[in-house]
Amino acid sequence: MKFKRTERIGATVKILSDNPNKVFTLSYFTNKFNSAKSTISEDLLVVKNVFEKLELGKVITIPGAAGGVKYIPKTSKTENEEFLLKLCEKINDSSRVLSGGFLYLVDIIYDPSIASNIGKIMASNIDYSEADYVVTMETKGIPMALMTAKAMNLPLVIIRKDIKVSEGPTLSTTYVSGDNTKVKSMSLPRKAIKENSKVIIVDDFMRGGGTIKGMMDLMNEFSAEVIGVGVFISTTNPNEKMVDNYISLMELDEDNKVRPNLKTFKDEYKNF
Amino acid sequence: MKFKRTERIGATVKILSDNPNKVFTLSYFTNKFNSAKSTISEDLLVVKNVFEKLELGKVITIPGAAGGVKYIPKTSKTENEEFLLKLCEKINDSSRVLSGGFLYLVDIIYDPSIASNIGKIMASNIDYSEADYVVTMETKGIPMALMTAKAMNLPLVIIRKDIKVSEGPTLSTTYVSGDNTKVKSMSLPRKAIKENSKVIIVDDFMRGGGTIKGMMDLMNEFSAEVIGVGVFISTTNPNEKMVDNYISLMELDEDNKVRPNLKTFKDEYKNF
Repeated sequence: MKFKRTERIGATVKILSDNPNKVFTLSYFTNKFNSAKSTISEDLLVVKNVFEKLELGKVITIPGAAGGVKYIPKTSKTENEEFLLKLCEKINDSSRVLSGGFLYLVDIIYDPSIASNIGKIMASNIDYSEADYVVTMETKGIPMALMTAKAMNLPLVIIRKDIKVSEGPTLSTTYVSGDNTKVKSMSLPRKAIKENSKVIIVDDFMRGGGTIKGMMDLMNEFSAEVIGVGVFISTTNPNEKMVDNYISLMELDEDNKVRPNLKTFKDEYKNF
Repeated sequence: MKFKRTERIGATVKILSDNPNKVFTLSYFTNKFNSAKSTISEDLLVVKNVFEKLELGKVITIPGAAGGVKYIPKTSKTENEEFLLKLCEKINDSSRVLSGGFLYLVDIIYDPSIASNIGKIMASNIDYSEADYVVTMETKGIPMALMTAKAMNLPLVIIRKDIKVSEGPTLSTTYVSGDNTKVKSMSLPRKAIKENSKVIIVDDFMRGGGTIKGMMDLMNEFSAEVIGVGVFISTTNPNEKMVDNYISLMELDEDNKVRPNLKTFKDEYKNF
């Protein structure tokens, strides 16, 4: 089958965009489109330009024998701000405040397109160039953690609250969550993480940081290093968290209002 | 800013592909690319052609005032077969059989790109044209259910195992799972599903069908109709399930071996 230039470019964009951070060799495209290397190289220049001009992320060339091209998702600061401001407006709707002062958020954080945007923003502002896994704890953080892992092209690991006999030998720890009075447990199968791995932790909410501290301790048991932490919403109170280095996309104040945490968003690309 | 034809086409593919089943008006593109309607219409013809020629799904035009174009993801039968055969080979590796005869699968079903493919296959073989939600139960089915919801452009609803006081008024039911001896409970906040909705249920595993039957009963309590059920793996034993109409992508036999369930995959597009 023969392809026109416009068709090759359209298809190349689709392939790269569906597979963030995955390296495709030149031969992959020459075979797929039955075209010469020079033709494909020209196509790729156009594709790079499309992504840059529309601020859709970056397409980079990796030289050498194992080389090729890959697409790195990157959201712009303006885009992040617009998206989060709109989201804050939705979250700050008074009908969302439940008795007990809780905020009803699951329809928002389970929404596939919102989760997907959150994932891209996490991937744009956390350095994952050396990471081996994205780690989260069930349940509410899973959608955004999965989309973060997709953008970073990393496997996702989900820590469970109970011990699952059906997952083989399992490591468990206890941690103190919420108001610092409840002791809970978390567990992960031995097979889930290779020794000496580097991981990124993603979660939906952080108050004191006890849950994330627990996840970090568990990672320690796996001889894994936590090299980045991203949370969707952190609270302004307490100001002191049990975790030092993290980014949060939004802050929740004591009046139950959220606002974008704009200092989180960086201008430069971190991940290449 | 002005765009060349190849750039417009690349960008249009990216936008449609990132937003399955979302309608974009012609004006959206004329504004974005600062181009005439006739130019955009020509671009869209090329884009349609790209998707069809490479079997990446279908781009369709919706006529009328609320009209525009949308992209419907659709995997081909050949592609499904190849993907599932490769996956079966991985799953049938003897190192995956744990004591107790359980299969270690979480690294596979949490993998973002595998979950994404499963989602597209579900969306290609379940009629969701009238659906309002994708529903799953925590935890292992969440990644594939989220990706299914993304492909279908529907909100995701996650049924919890415990009652969460932080989600407001909640409906709970009990169900019988696994070997038909354990009684468990599941719950969902009242706010999660509007009355008279139509839902698609997605889950990772079905033996007797007790869990899915429980989810169907819970949907009944919400006055919601279940119009489709998709599971990743169903077991050959028992042959009789508590659920009648479902599709499963793979079958697990009594020797703990999986194989693609090829009768599931249809040729025609269902969802337009």
